[in-house]
Amino acid sequence: MTQAHQTLWQNATIATFDPQIDDSYGLLTHHDILVEGNQIIAIAPSGELSADTIYPLQGALITPSLVDCHTHLVFGGSRANEWEQRQNGVSYQDISAQGGGINATVQATRAISETDLFTLSQKRLQSFLHEGVGLIEIKSGYGLDLATEAKTLRVAQQLAQHQAIEISRTLLSAHAIPPEFTGRPDEYMNHIIEVIMPILWQQDLFDCVDVFCENVGFNLAQSERLFQAAQQLGIPIKGHTEQLSLMGGSELVARFQGWSADHVEYLDEQGIQAMAQNGTVATLLPGAFYFLRETQKPPIDLLRQYGVAMAVASDFNPGTSPFASLRLAMNMVCVQFGLTPLEAWQGVTVHAARALRREHDFGSLQVGKPAHFNVWDTDTPVDIVYELGRSFLKQRVLHGNITVGA
Amino acid sequence: MTQAHQTLWQNATIATFDPQIDDSYGLLTHHDILVEGNQIIAIAPSGELSADTIYPLQGALITPSLVDCHTHLVFGGSRANEWEQRQNGVSYQDISAQGGGINATVQATRAISETDLFTLSQKRLQSFLHEGVGLIEIKSGYGLDLATEAKTLRVAQQLAQHQAIEISRTLLSAHAIPPEFTGRPDEYMNHIIEVIMPILWQQDLFDCVDVFCENVGFNLAQSERLFQAAQQLGIPIKGHTEQLSLMGGSELVARFQGWSADHVEYLDEQGIQAMAQNGTVATLLPGAFYFLRETQKPPIDLLRQYGVAMAVASDFNPGTSPFASLRLAMNMVCVQFGLTPLEAWQGVTVHAARALRREHDFGSLQVGKPAHFNVWDTDTPVDIVYELGRSFLKQRVLHGNITVGA
Ligand SMILES: [Zn+2]
Ligand SMILES: [Zn+2]
Repeated sequence: MTQAHQTLWQNATIATFDPQIDDSYGLLTHHDILVEGNQIIAIAPSGELSADTIYPLQGALITPSLVDCHTHLVFGGSRANEWEQRQNGVSYQDISAQGGGINATVQATRAISETDLFTLSQKRLQSFLHEGVGLIEIKSGYGLDLATEAKTLRVAQQLAQHQAIEISRTLLSAHAIPPEFTGRPDEYMNHIIEVIMPILWQQDLFDCVDVFCENVGFNLAQSERLFQAAQQLGIPIKGHTEQLSLMGGSELVARFQGWSADHVEYLDEQGIQAMAQNGTVATLLPGAFYFLRETQKPPIDLLRQYGVAMAVASDFNPGTSPFASLRLAMNMVCVQFGLTPLEAWQGVTVHAARALRREHDFGSLQVGKPAHFNVWDTDTPVDIVYELGRSFLKQRVLHGNITVGA
Repeated sequence: MTQAHQTLWQNATIATFDPQIDDSYGLLTHHDILVEGNQIIAIAPSGELSADTIYPLQGALITPSLVDCHTHLVFGGSRANEWEQRQNGVSYQDISAQGGGINATVQATRAISETDLFTLSQKRLQSFLHEGVGLIEIKSGYGLDLATEAKTLRVAQQLAQHQAIEISRTLLSAHAIPPEFTGRPDEYMNHIIEVIMPILWQQDLFDCVDVFCENVGFNLAQSERLFQAAQQLGIPIKGHTEQLSLMGGSELVARFQGWSADHVEYLDEQGIQAMAQNGTVATLLPGAFYFLRETQKPPIDLLRQYGVAMAVASDFNPGTSPFASLRLAMNMVCVQFGLTPLEAWQGVTVHAARALRREHDFGSLQVGKPAHFNVWDTDTPVDIVYELGRSFLKQRVLHGNITVGA
């Protein structure tokens, strides 16, 4: 009987984020990680373990793979030109009149072929791979009809098949009202509930359903109808809530044991209480806050006080957060919202994994979990939050395989 | 007689920034660039030129190499831990008492060996190379004594020799008061004027001299003494001015025909007038503005009105702008200060080249200039400002050689 090949990452500084070690980085210095197949089979002080292949790290930092739990990465076209017009002084009204805004992205996403959409999305994914992201969430929501929502989610599926990354897929057909339903939001919600959601769920094309609960999106009653229908089919839910005003969407998400309430700038104590009680994660999206020059910050102190887990995500999208960088979001959440670097790190590891209900395979480094981790050219986690631009990534390991670096 | 090898970049969208074309991007579509040796020998509509080697670009964008005209890239140590403490709620006073702040960087820069400083700086330079930066300015200013200022500038020199990048070196010994001169700023200024500046100028170690003119730095009289001494030796000058208060430093820089006045958040009309009259560039540094959560923006409208050229730079430094990314600065200068994407582009091409008095070899694409340019995976300049994270860089050409991409 031959023994399976074992690989040892030797003499690392490991930020495990293992709650059994501490509620901080869970730091282990001068430790080794032993991997067999796709699994971590031992973590021990240096000198105790050996293996067939050994990478001596001389104190280099190992962290869990990063998790980006909120993106809109699969879309057609670009809205950069529209932004250039706005910066040049053209009014929102004039840009809208030209067919700009989210409708432009819906048009482009409907028009593009599935192959081209895949190619474009693959390009957008590269920066996340090179930042050490191992699990990324991707939402539909620029199709707004059955065929294009399906196309978007199939592309997300294909990305996971062709790239060394895990993808969590979210149905966000309730992102905006498509042109063919203008002025009839309830009818469009019926269409989602009766047609789009059940059919694509049947096809196993998504993991969770999302809604943009906002004055400019869907109201509380419409959101609740969606969640009730989802609940009947056993579909998990989450929401874009309290971004521009206090609607009560986060509390609603919590009442349905939703995975996460995202944005939450205008969240109140009642919503926070409900989230704490139901284990709903607050996902902070500082990219849109920065890009839209917002001033209302999420209630960080109150979220801390109630012990609500805070995730941090890129929100990568064509209009309000065109940033394919999770590290930028980590920096911005500290600078803009006052999170600590530890909280930013937890926000892209343990708490982001929790936001996607993927704690079993992502978020922390523990014996028995899959070997998803990054080796960095530093021994200090804060460097990765602080010094943007510099890569730091030496090796990206997913399922025990080195996918970036050597 | 054999003809020299010629290379053709064929069917590009060229943002020339050539003022003879227009005062915008100077865009030429379906054009070719012909290079012989390190020189651009022709720019013409596609179909007119041929060459030994041809790169067919199918409309891909070519721009001049980017120019980052203000960085502090060569320094020892890291202040990331200090920032983590601050985010964790430790006061400035306590961090200062622990020997934090700029003094920590001075200590680390004095302590590190020249070889290690080179290795560290080379790592920091990589992200700029991969962003398409072809010319970067690097300041001393963390040595504050003859030996360490010399070491810093020698490392900057070595970087230019070992990496495919041009480097403009600036003597910023007047960055802060070193511990051995505490409370004696005039004596330290004398030391710069009598010892550091003339000796290092004699050794050809820098191109321009800089001063931090601020309440917490050097006052107007001290700055003027430095400029007078520089003038006598024929040394060009520039300044860190009006960052935290209105001191009149920008006007002083302009009176000495200085290359650029940098930061300029508190700049007034009188200073702007002087800059316009003397061709002094205003270098905007939005990274520090973002990182320090400043609220006073530079007087952009007035700078436009007087026709002062605005450059945009990363200000990469260990304490107040730890961002090794010029594209991030391009985005931030638009989002935070309201520049147009065109102005951001001019700020890292023509105007940045002007800020370093390198218009003869950088900043625009014209026949007869050296072949320093980037080929991008888009046909639209604004994409590079807008969609951070995604690389876009296909080829980086310096002196006619492809240094990134193939
Ligand atoms: Zn979103
Ligand atoms: Zn500076």
